[in-house]
Amino acid sequence: MSSLLRSRLISSKNILRNINYTRQFSSTSSNMVKVLADLKLFLKVLAVLYKGGQAAQEEPRLLGTIENSLGISDWLKKEGHEFIVTDDKEGPNSEFQKHIADAEILVTTPFHPGYLTADLIDKAKNLKLCVTAGVGSDHIDLNAANKKNITVAEVSGSNVVSVAEHVVMSILLLVRNFVPAHEQIVSDDWNVAEIARNAFDLEGKTIGTVGCGRIGYRVLERLQGFNCKELLWFDYTDLPEDKKKEEFKRVEKLEDMLAKCDVVTINCPLHEKTKGLFNDEMISKMKKGAWLVNTARGAICDRDAVKKALESGHLNGYAGDVWDVQPSPKDHPWRHAFNTLGGGNGMVPHYSGTTLDAQARYANGAKDIIQRYFAGKEQEPANLIVVNGDYASKAYGQRDNKNKATGQKPAGP
Amino acid sequence: MSSLLRSRLISSKNILRNINYTRQFSSTSSNMVKVLADLKLFLKVLAVLYKGGQAAQEEPRLLGTIENSLGISDWLKKEGHEFIVTDDKEGPNSEFQKHIADAEILVTTPFHPGYLTADLIDKAKNLKLCVTAGVGSDHIDLNAANKKNITVAEVSGSNVVSVAEHVVMSILLLVRNFVPAHEQIVSDDWNVAEIARNAFDLEGKTIGTVGCGRIGYRVLERLQGFNCKELLWFDYTDLPEDKKKEEFKRVEKLEDMLAKCDVVTINCPLHEKTKGLFNDEMISKMKKGAWLVNTARGAICDRDAVKKALESGHLNGYAGDVWDVQPSPKDHPWRHAFNTLGGGNGMVPHYSGTTLDAQARYANGAKDIIQRYFAGKEQEPANLIVVNGDYASKAYGQRDNKNKATGQKPAGP
Repeated sequence: MSSLLRSRLISSKNILRNINYTRQFSSTSSNMVKVLADLKLFLKVLAVLYKGGQAAQEEPRLLGTIENSLGISDWLKKEGHEFIVTDDKEGPNSEFQKHIADAEILVTTPFHPGYLTADLIDKAKNLKLCVTAGVGSDHIDLNAANKKNITVAEVSGSNVVSVAEHVVMSILLLVRNFVPAHEQIVSDDWNVAEIARNAFDLEGKTIGTVGCGRIGYRVLERLQGFNCKELLWFDYTDLPEDKKKEEFKRVEKLEDMLAKCDVVTINCPLHEKTKGLFNDEMISKMKKGAWLVNTARGAICDRDAVKKALESGHLNGYAGDVWDVQPSPKDHPWRHAFNTLGGGNGMVPHYSGTTLDAQARYANGAKDIIQRYFAGKEQEPANLIVVNGDYASKAYGQRDNKNKATGQKPAGP
Repeated sequence: MSSLLRSRLISSKNILRNINYTRQFSSTSSNMVKVLADLKLFLKVLAVLYKGGQAAQEEPRLLGTIENSLGISDWLKKEGHEFIVTDDKEGPNSEFQKHIADAEILVTTPFHPGYLTADLIDKAKNLKLCVTAGVGSDHIDLNAANKKNITVAEVSGSNVVSVAEHVVMSILLLVRNFVPAHEQIVSDDWNVAEIARNAFDLEGKTIGTVGCGRIGYRVLERLQGFNCKELLWFDYTDLPEDKKKEEFKRVEKLEDMLAKCDVVTINCPLHEKTKGLFNDEMISKMKKGAWLVNTARGAICDRDAVKKALESGHLNGYAGDVWDVQPSPKDHPWRHAFNTLGGGNGMVPHYSGTTLDAQARYANGAKDIIQRYFAGKEQEPANLIVVNGDYASKAYGQRDNKNKATGQKPAGP
């Protein structure tokens, strides 16, 4: 029996009756479980995950799927809790919206987000803890969560390396014009000039990151070996002294950085101040022919502005794995947005932070957050987004709203 | 008038007659040019380049194309030389095979190679200099060139950065399963589990390069920021002392390195000892599920062995831009070779070393080699492959044939 349940039991109004009752029936632990269930002292845990299908049956390391359920299904059931796992998340009749009414813990991921709106939070009578298995909790209305004193925690750091690698890959494949080149091969074509005319080296180019937190900083670290002209960063908060490097140059004004960059990579969270940040106007501050990589959140870039900039030639390419709605609708403009030469699209589904390596990290992390909740232990401070009715993380820019925040958690490994 | 032509003129049997003749008619330099042409003292320069078509007309930086002709057309013509440029290179009636009969300088590239066989060298009565605009002269029969005292020079270093970047990009996109992910987007699909089941982080993996010369070394330099488990290298020759790094570990036996690597990258030249090096047997020494990247030369890997290993699951992916015949035939097995999950193919046409940045470098370098030849100046030693009837470079492994060579030029920037 977890300490959370024990403390509830003890603090119950019917404490004496309960104690007598459990003494009477719970000579074995399985009896105890039954008793506690009868008393409705077990929690309902609801998880919205993505469907794995055959892939999940064949690959047990696909922990982020409904089938493999973060690897915590047996454990939760053994502890006696109800564990509802679903990928059905849209509309009032979805499993997500039905079960949110009485779930105490909600587990979601950024890859197939269960959007927890203020309306749903109103309906969620028992909800105490939202766990993001991964990083990025913008699918939750954090202000509404604060009003109801709901804790939101994520597995901070679980995917920072995965995403930083995806960023560097995306930069390379845009600058080097990989996608049209590969398409030639599979379509039995061969035309070097058509590829080479828009293929460049990363060496000698200027790269800038919007946000220099855990991911942005790791992107710069990985770019250090490429002999770039300049590695720039913009953030509302400074780097800790021991993380500052001569090669990483801070730019005070976002627009000044954009004007210098051949490649811009977005590594800041989505919140009120960053939503739609890369609209027509902001993109127009970028160099003509620059490349833009966004693995942060789709809604930071205006979907139509990106497509227009590609088609006009102002952007030479756009890549990333995040979309303003996920799964991305079939008619989302980014699926078929191309530069003036018919290339420059490096989009993928939202998976950069859900490699098998990352899944092991965020599944373990989600379990740890739930265990701490059960045990009444403090959460790791780095994992907390909102707690006790307030923002615990400056990442979402709410505690420091004088800044035009593109904030991040403090950088560093 | 170049010093080469001047020296020929002076050494001519008809020296006096020539001098009188030129004095008589050559009051202006254009008269001089005409006179020298009449005397057949101008050179025929033959270049086999790739066709650029509309791309080359629209993009003047596409210097490697027949249309833009390395940017040396006007210069050569102004100097009075005949400059034949063609992409027609196969068969006895091709422009290449017709003009090779009396060309004195042949310029080729690795991207659309004019294969200079021993037979053709026999026919090439005037050939004195072969210039590879780029790096890699294996399309020339070097032994036959030596027998006829033909100099072979390439623009060493012109594409080392370009290729090293392509290698790192290819490693990332195989390990992270990019291609099937992007294909989902353009085919209006969305299935995170199908991608994630075979997506990994590069962090924590072991990478090894076969050949640690100018390219292989730069690959390791670029991988340093990725927090890999081990960065290994195999080469027949050691690194210079000032290039050795604790993070780059030499492995004495190729097979020992292969057994440890999650990713193997091939960065050695093609010659007798490396042709077909990665056959069934050598691939079987690799870890099951490893990724193989080859941007060196296609023929270093056996085409059927690679396809078989992908289909059996022994290899999880194969990527690169080099093919045993170029342009690659439509039915080349690597165009449609996939791993057991239908992915793992990162092939592109041969273009990694012909980015616009690289084209500027190799066009300048080719011009410099030709200028030195005209002026009777020594070539840069690093650029020489064969000269004075012998191998100038250990890269092709001929001077040191006790080693099972996968040799490279000495490493370093």
